[in-house]
Amino acid sequence: MANPASLTSHQVRLAARPVGLPTPANWQFTEEPVAEPEDGGIVVKTLALSLDPAMRGWMNEGKSYIPPVGIGEVMRAGGVGRVVASRHSGFAVGDTVAGSLGVQTFARFGGADLKRAGLNKIDLQLGTVTQWLNVLGMPGMTAYFGLKDVGLPQAGETLVVSGAAGAVGQTVGQLGKILGMRVVGIAGGAAKCAWVVKELGFDACIDYKGGAVKDGLKEHCPQGVDVYFDNVGGDILDTVLTRINRKARIVICGAISQYNATEAVKGPKNYLSLLVNRARMEGMVVFDYADRYPQAIAELAGYLKDGRMTSREDVVRGGVDAFPDTLLKLFSGENFGKLVLQLADE
Amino acid sequence: MANPASLTSHQVRLAARPVGLPTPANWQFTEEPVAEPEDGGIVVKTLALSLDPAMRGWMNEGKSYIPPVGIGEVMRAGGVGRVVASRHSGFAVGDTVAGSLGVQTFARFGGADLKRAGLNKIDLQLGTVTQWLNVLGMPGMTAYFGLKDVGLPQAGETLVVSGAAGAVGQTVGQLGKILGMRVVGIAGGAAKCAWVVKELGFDACIDYKGGAVKDGLKEHCPQGVDVYFDNVGGDILDTVLTRINRKARIVICGAISQYNATEAVKGPKNYLSLLVNRARMEGMVVFDYADRYPQAIAELAGYLKDGRMTSREDVVRGGVDAFPDTLLKLFSGENFGKLVLQLADE
Repeated sequence: MANPASLTSHQVRLAARPVGLPTPANWQFTEEPVAEPEDGGIVVKTLALSLDPAMRGWMNEGKSYIPPVGIGEVMRAGGVGRVVASRHSGFAVGDTVAGSLGVQTFARFGGADLKRAGLNKIDLQLGTVTQWLNVLGMPGMTAYFGLKDVGLPQAGETLVVSGAAGAVGQTVGQLGKILGMRVVGIAGGAAKCAWVVKELGFDACIDYKGGAVKDGLKEHCPQGVDVYFDNVGGDILDTVLTRINRKARIVICGAISQYNATEAVKGPKNYLSLLVNRARMEGMVVFDYADRYPQAIAELAGYLKDGRMTSREDVVRGGVDAFPDTLLKLFSGENFGKLVLQLADE
Repeated sequence: MANPASLTSHQVRLAARPVGLPTPANWQFTEEPVAEPEDGGIVVKTLALSLDPAMRGWMNEGKSYIPPVGIGEVMRAGGVGRVVASRHSGFAVGDTVAGSLGVQTFARFGGADLKRAGLNKIDLQLGTVTQWLNVLGMPGMTAYFGLKDVGLPQAGETLVVSGAAGAVGQTVGQLGKILGMRVVGIAGGAAKCAWVVKELGFDACIDYKGGAVKDGLKEHCPQGVDVYFDNVGGDILDTVLTRINRKARIVICGAISQYNATEAVKGPKNYLSLLVNRARMEGMVVFDYADRYPQAIAELAGYLKDGRMTSREDVVRGGVDAFPDTLLKLFSGENFGKLVLQLADE
């Protein structure tokens, strides 16, 4: 293992807050020597970074569920890495860890930073590096707790999930099937829809680029919609609102269609369907469930192992300089599966 | 008591579905002789009718929580009346009843109709005829179950209620005070706001006609908003969404600002505040709680009796022909308290 003092970390920093889609002007590339870890600290080499729709929100000024990334700061990103230097008794050189590494090739943590970064050792017997950023990582945790704790799913009910081929959606739908629900996805394009049905076992998938979502819901949800897991917002949320059942639960997990809006976010004009149907729309933030991640990871890893669940990651290989362009794939819907930027193999 | 066969019922029927605010062209006035009740049936003389924002929805075509009023049918209305003829063992001539009487001076019910109309004998010892259309009637039931079962109020939390001087709002706020909450109303005009604070005991009331609701919320809800009971929708809902606390509950009871909209309903563009705050927006329809009305009526009547609660009705006296104009007072916000059309004293 190299002496950290001889290492250089390449970093992507937020240079300016974007208006609409991020552009090259929003980013700054820097490099810095990596100092030895302080007492109680570690240095981690980034193997792979998670690229998430939520990143767009972190780039905005203003109060949200976590503080925005500051101008000049390394862009926040979850990742998997390998410990390359340690002065912490709980981490050994060679350990694989997951947590908030940032968009940089090496991350140096003081003892106090480790908890803030949510850094944990992970077991590659349970899943691959990229699965640890997907079904065993934040997207999987979001799917698990959003569906179970907020969606309150019942066997026999109909679950609709948007962004069905994406990181969260793929796990939501497969969990719904395991729970005995009828599961209908909404995704962009015939290839994603085919995969969602054939590989993930959803009952149907509506291609929002290929026809009216309303007609698809009528056809594939003949008993109406009991749980809607919303990753996209916008017109699709509005359309699903017209098809919900009495006492339906809408899980507001995200609204990728609105994150780059330069005009006001589009509110769901059909929200009074909540009244007519005594239904509920509820937001969730995965961090609230951190105490229960181990239980969820164990359960999901079990499903991966016994074949009841699969996962798909869209892995882009490159340096941190590939981050800006790779991120844009999320907003064009170009990614197919959980989007990961893989910086190194080991 | 007059022989029903000699009675004439004056009726207001829906002539055409309105676009925007109802106009005279939407109504038809008819009169009919009142037949003797059939075996198991009764005839009721209407004393007072409840005028409710929900009536506007019942005039629209299309699926809602109850079927629309059909063209040519007597307009649906809750009311209090007196039994003037009975061939039903459970009702005697002279009994006072409440239920769905319709906008007519006499209502004739077959045995099978009684349950559908929700007709029950009422006790005028517990409240006046107009209170039975207000705090002891549908508005009071809506307030009680909407706040308790959907709002999940906790002592010490902050409750905001729009339409605070209206039928539902006045009871919601007073219940909130009884439950130990900080209660802030939103109402239109200084007179209503003064009454809400001085007579009902709210902690504050924001006059939406007199200034920015946002500033009022900042001033009067220094700890944020935990429960928002929404009767109005529109911009006020959107503004409250910017002030909610983590795990806040928004009770969607109505949206009077939108009922006469000729363009699309305005969706709450700040709905992603639900996500950031892990908050919930949930609709309610009072009929779902019918089994528990007796318990709620007993509790609310107790508060009226011991002075912990008061009520205000805006009573218009007139014939059924006064119904169309009186209804419009609701949508201009001209009514001050629960709007009632009183047709007769006994």
